[in-house]
Amino acid sequence: MTFPVVGMVGGGQLARMTHEAGIPLGIRFKLLSDTPQDSAAQVVSDVVIGDYRDLDTLRAFAQGCAVVTFDHEHVPAEHLRALEADGVVIRPGVEALLHAQDKGVMRERLRAAGVPCPRHRIVADPEDVARFAAEGDGFPVVLKTVRGGYDGKGVWVVRGVAEAAEPFRAGVPVLAEEMVDFARELAANVVRSPHGQAVAYPVVESIQVNGVCDTVIAPAPGLSEELSGRAQEMALKIAAELGVVGHLAVELFETRDGRLLVNELAMRPHNSGHWTQDGAVTSQFANHVRAVLDLPLGDPRPRARWTVMTNVLGGDYPDMYGAYLHCMARDPGLKIHMYGKDVKPGRKVGHVNTYGDDLADVRERGRHAADYLRGTITE
Amino acid sequence: MTFPVVGMVGGGQLARMTHEAGIPLGIRFKLLSDTPQDSAAQVVSDVVIGDYRDLDTLRAFAQGCAVVTFDHEHVPAEHLRALEADGVVIRPGVEALLHAQDKGVMRERLRAAGVPCPRHRIVADPEDVARFAAEGDGFPVVLKTVRGGYDGKGVWVVRGVAEAAEPFRAGVPVLAEEMVDFARELAANVVRSPHGQAVAYPVVESIQVNGVCDTVIAPAPGLSEELSGRAQEMALKIAAELGVVGHLAVELFETRDGRLLVNELAMRPHNSGHWTQDGAVTSQFANHVRAVLDLPLGDPRPRARWTVMTNVLGGDYPDMYGAYLHCMARDPGLKIHMYGKDVKPGRKVGHVNTYGDDLADVRERGRHAADYLRGTITE
Repeated sequence: MTFPVVGMVGGGQLARMTHEAGIPLGIRFKLLSDTPQDSAAQVVSDVVIGDYRDLDTLRAFAQGCAVVTFDHEHVPAEHLRALEADGVVIRPGVEALLHAQDKGVMRERLRAAGVPCPRHRIVADPEDVARFAAEGDGFPVVLKTVRGGYDGKGVWVVRGVAEAAEPFRAGVPVLAEEMVDFARELAANVVRSPHGQAVAYPVVESIQVNGVCDTVIAPAPGLSEELSGRAQEMALKIAAELGVVGHLAVELFETRDGRLLVNELAMRPHNSGHWTQDGAVTSQFANHVRAVLDLPLGDPRPRARWTVMTNVLGGDYPDMYGAYLHCMARDPGLKIHMYGKDVKPGRKVGHVNTYGDDLADVRERGRHAADYLRGTITE
Repeated sequence: MTFPVVGMVGGGQLARMTHEAGIPLGIRFKLLSDTPQDSAAQVVSDVVIGDYRDLDTLRAFAQGCAVVTFDHEHVPAEHLRALEADGVVIRPGVEALLHAQDKGVMRERLRAAGVPCPRHRIVADPEDVARFAAEGDGFPVVLKTVRGGYDGKGVWVVRGVAEAAEPFRAGVPVLAEEMVDFARELAANVVRSPHGQAVAYPVVESIQVNGVCDTVIAPAPGLSEELSGRAQEMALKIAAELGVVGHLAVELFETRDGRLLVNELAMRPHNSGHWTQDGAVTSQFANHVRAVLDLPLGDPRPRARWTVMTNVLGGDYPDMYGAYLHCMARDPGLKIHMYGKDVKPGRKVGHVNTYGDDLADVRERGRHAADYLRGTITE
């Protein structure tokens, strides 16, 4: 058998959906998971239960893998370096991943590459935060721990020196950024292969609620061809500069005066790309698999006029499956993607994709289904 | 956790692709497989290795399953009856499955229901075959063992009494059918749920080579709306009459004078429906899962003007993965579906789906990819 083994570190829903995309390619999938109940562990045959923070565990796991890739960005960089020194093929590599793991490193690199970012600098303490605010338009400012944040965690909007104390308690360097008065948030996602081939997905609009992704609209409505092209070029440039292999999500602010500023980077399949599972010729997951295996990339073009992804977060209603009857009967075209995770309030437990020619209708269908699955509405 | 467990008997590619479709629904999948290397066993977490011909094995397997369904039609009917008597939910049920398992039973039931079939009857020996031939237009005639046949096995085209001996050696009753001079073969596939909801897929043209499915074109080119509607109604009627739950494939002959005759039935996802994975809003696999769980069915409508499935059979070239480079680079829109099976000459090891607006181009793309993967061509 010549089909390679892809090693995936992390058993979350991104790993689950990457396995789903790997099945038709005949790829063999090996998973390093925290527990047997993890989202991906429920659906994969070859599962190793272990701690991704332990180098011996990682070394043993990497045995027999043609390539190792990641569901999250928390594998310690020193372990990644050790694996690469062992000769393990890691994609994306540690040099690229550093820029997704450490926001300070990311900001410095982007600045050096001439990629537009919000005004920013590392700050030492709350008084330094006040100085940073004064250097611009004052409070509020955004504070982020340089490592460890996701889904709104590790990010604070502070309105004064008093609120600026908490981020420093983590003992991790803190990055201050101007609070951008954006018109909206976009995502320009690309996939890049080891030999430099890259594809760019349509630029999407991303709507956050309470710091967590809520809705993604593909393509971003009313986005000019000029701005869309600029966003895609920016993402392709970042991918090439940083040597990213696999999927790269570039989250952007579109300012009111039409500028693009890079907000965050993620070097793995990303929430802003879930729409591609039903809305693009090749999903982000399928293309991530191809890229890490150095296979030619698949067509990223859209299949529908509008595709909308609506996240399903846990509410007070634990019986997601019981909601299927209503949701499926109401909308036979609804595409449900549940992660097999226990329902906890505010937790990402799934998403729904809807597509069609009428954006308002497509959005409403997704909204209704997500709200019903969550238990927010009951009819 | 409220998500049900679907028990799948049989570890072939149909089970593999059904699991793939179940992942986004959050369904838990339990597999009864002959070996750990079976197509589906490679990609499923909860695998039981055992013999589907053993009742105790089946009983133990069914424990904890909300429903049990099948990758093939070879589970002995007496075992299915025993399971149903135990209270196990089997879909499709044994009364329906009898008509897929036994061609003699199928022919009698269809005749009673007024569904057009080729001229046929059970024959006792080669002399009886000669009488059957004489009752019509003479030889050649088609002989089929009433049980056990698939992919061209258990089917003989006999041109005289001498050739008519072999089918009887199996010790299984033999069904004789007139050799239909068909214009082409079609498939009218439907999915039916326990409470009677049903969806009908577009009628497709199916091209066989050496008794094995080679190419499927969706929709069947040049098929009149009248004939297409008639084929779909026929399939829906058969599904309802027989109480089928899940996917039903109705393979049809379209005669030169525009009549439809039922050739074969299959009560599971079927080769003639693989195009739906990329060409329909809801695949046959996803709808089969919904049906056996008594969930509302998904939209069966096509997403592209033309979708073509081309089977990949094993050739002399064992390195399918090595062929990916060329195939993917040549056609970024190609949708590959490999089964993880060892390459043996003539064995179904995968299929490719292609879709677009130009049928000749869509067919050529599929043909080239399948031939290259097989090793028939090398550039």
